[in-house]
Amino acid sequence: MGNCLVAQSGGPTAVINGSLAGVIRGNQLNPVYGKVYGGIHGIEGVLNGRLYDLSDLSGREIDILKQTPSSALGTCRYKLSRGNDADYLRLVEVMDKFDIDVLFYIGGNDSMDTVDALSVWAQKNGLKKRFVGIPKTVDNDLVPMDHCPGFPSAAKLACQVTHATRLDYDAYTRPEVFVLETMGRDAGWLAASCCVTGDVDLIILPEVPYDKDAFLHQVQKKMDETGSCYIVASEGARFASGEYISAGDAVNDGFSHAVLGGAAITLRHTIVDAGIVPRGVVQDLSRAARSSNFCQSAVDIAEAYELGLSAHMRSADPRFTGQVIGLRRADKDGEYNAEYFAAPASEFANHVRQFPTEWILPDYQGITQEAIDYFRPLIQGEPKLIYKDGLPETLVPFNRRPSNI
Amino acid sequence: MGNCLVAQSGGPTAVINGSLAGVIRGNQLNPVYGKVYGGIHGIEGVLNGRLYDLSDLSGREIDILKQTPSSALGTCRYKLSRGNDADYLRLVEVMDKFDIDVLFYIGGNDSMDTVDALSVWAQKNGLKKRFVGIPKTVDNDLVPMDHCPGFPSAAKLACQVTHATRLDYDAYTRPEVFVLETMGRDAGWLAASCCVTGDVDLIILPEVPYDKDAFLHQVQKKMDETGSCYIVASEGARFASGEYISAGDAVNDGFSHAVLGGAAITLRHTIVDAGIVPRGVVQDLSRAARSSNFCQSAVDIAEAYELGLSAHMRSADPRFTGQVIGLRRADKDGEYNAEYFAAPASEFANHVRQFPTEWILPDYQGITQEAIDYFRPLIQGEPKLIYKDGLPETLVPFNRRPSNI
Repeated sequence: MGNCLVAQSGGPTAVINGSLAGVIRGNQLNPVYGKVYGGIHGIEGVLNGRLYDLSDLSGREIDILKQTPSSALGTCRYKLSRGNDADYLRLVEVMDKFDIDVLFYIGGNDSMDTVDALSVWAQKNGLKKRFVGIPKTVDNDLVPMDHCPGFPSAAKLACQVTHATRLDYDAYTRPEVFVLETMGRDAGWLAASCCVTGDVDLIILPEVPYDKDAFLHQVQKKMDETGSCYIVASEGARFASGEYISAGDAVNDGFSHAVLGGAAITLRHTIVDAGIVPRGVVQDLSRAARSSNFCQSAVDIAEAYELGLSAHMRSADPRFTGQVIGLRRADKDGEYNAEYFAAPASEFANHVRQFPTEWILPDYQGITQEAIDYFRPLIQGEPKLIYKDGLPETLVPFNRRPSNI
Repeated sequence: MGNCLVAQSGGPTAVINGSLAGVIRGNQLNPVYGKVYGGIHGIEGVLNGRLYDLSDLSGREIDILKQTPSSALGTCRYKLSRGNDADYLRLVEVMDKFDIDVLFYIGGNDSMDTVDALSVWAQKNGLKKRFVGIPKTVDNDLVPMDHCPGFPSAAKLACQVTHATRLDYDAYTRPEVFVLETMGRDAGWLAASCCVTGDVDLIILPEVPYDKDAFLHQVQKKMDETGSCYIVASEGARFASGEYISAGDAVNDGFSHAVLGGAAITLRHTIVDAGIVPRGVVQDLSRAARSSNFCQSAVDIAEAYELGLSAHMRSADPRFTGQVIGLRRADKDGEYNAEYFAAPASEFANHVRQFPTEWILPDYQGITQEAIDYFRPLIQGEPKLIYKDGLPETLVPFNRRPSNI
């Protein structure tokens, strides 16, 4: 067999490099491929022939890679559009040049769509190139995953910040509200996970239209009853019209997704303007949550790594293409357990799995016990990090190194 | 000897309960006082007779207390004004009622002023009541401390978030700036500490007037030279006129300090409006940094605890009053070492120790090696936290419990 290529796409996570490490280590344990190349800045860099040879990372480097946050290969928002044969041909040209048989693509639903499109196109054109997807996303919104690597670590950090800032908030007697904002454009998984702590009074998720008057009524009620109101809002919180709460600040990224932020600040203004309390505290948890290598969930890093391993192992079968490795829950004797499966990339692509509305309590009151039971196993365990000078040691990203090929 | 009372004031920190634990444990090791009472919500609660008996916390409870963020007794912004004899007499009345000889007050410079005023007043009026200060503040701005408990843990979290979000930022190719905002109203210690990581391109501290044109010139230069610009701004960043960058959002708290936030958002707007880049990412690290029990510095938690112990031990001397326990650096054989001292509270009160201007590089370029050498030892070491269900275990705050006396 020839070589393989692995690339990362979309927003980074705290464990996305765990999956990368799994592919690299997999090939060290069973050298199915001559070399493991990394694509610099995802498909965008690959199309420009920017590769890095990852084959010979040492065991220690692989350990450090697993605790390095963000995409160590760099990422991109460039989308290989269906029907863009020029890009497809250019990709095959690069793969041919480096004798690459298989591309492992680590990403979210857009990337899984790319895996699907490329494999269909290659088969139709009689090309032996293969494409395998490895899912990741802090948004946890991939169908048909039980949960997505990256999400549990973001949730663990979000829960820790929720609990710590709730204690900070509770230390005061003055009348104010606290509003924590989390990432989550179309799905409220990360915001909802904060409820595991038992510290959240009110929650605003994208799945439930935001009704200003009804919400303010609940804030007033909490203040009247308990003298405090701790609120968590997803960045994707929106009115029934579909307009984001934070619409004022929205601009667009390359995928025509609104770039959000500011729901919490808007909510604070709304509550203060309504005269419920004279002030509010805002904490925004955007990039800090998804790159929280200092708060990795042990479950998450193990699963991200094993997804990479599993993808590498399964790809030894020359018929394996257009597939994505998934995770499903398979509890055993009442204990959390996950099992890995492969399914066509089309099943993962371009769907959004929202937080189930049947898990949402009415009147912004939080989530059901079933939802808490879903989240709790995911945030368990703390990996033993390797520290250097007081901080978790990290690898210099490959996209910031001179080429080694 | 009678009993003692310990209370917390001002903004919480990640290790403020370490000092509380030191006083409680000190009295278990050497029962100088019959009971150790906690004052609920600082002086405000004490004046209302709200106390909690802390004498018999178990060893395990004390371990958990040390990793519980925020003020476990609750805090207040109420200031015992000099000359407010009504408050002073009420305080003595409560102390008499509970047979309390000594009040340990854990707080910042306002609280140290209270310790000074109370001890002077008590001595003048021939009262045997004594007052001892234990410093804390994430702002690190107390004179004559080498550093203030709470600051190192906030700095450790800020450094971890800086490094993780820098890697996240570096994964992209698109032209944008990153702006991290830290706490620090009048002193830029926390913002400056982020430079220890080597990840900060430009920094805006309260100590150096913000010149919009000069700053934008530097942003443009970094973008031209490297294609990226990672900025850290202190919430207290201000123009030469003294006006805060974020002035639009300012309201006032009980001490007439402006309540800040929003410097980073303002900077992003300024940079985008200037046409340097089309977008920017903002991460605000306000409450999450100061309550970061999941990122305590081992140096910090040890020192906070020992300050409490030292205060308790020294207070066994019946002449010990109006004193604050301080920390000075006393490196040994080139290794970091701190020693404890006692000094009159007046030396700690109402001064602000700004980040030294001789440690600041020109043109917003960061800090000197001397400054980095100052910070680095403070963020070393990670305490072994006790986890429960995936989160560091915490005590139920005493201000949220029914009274036990």
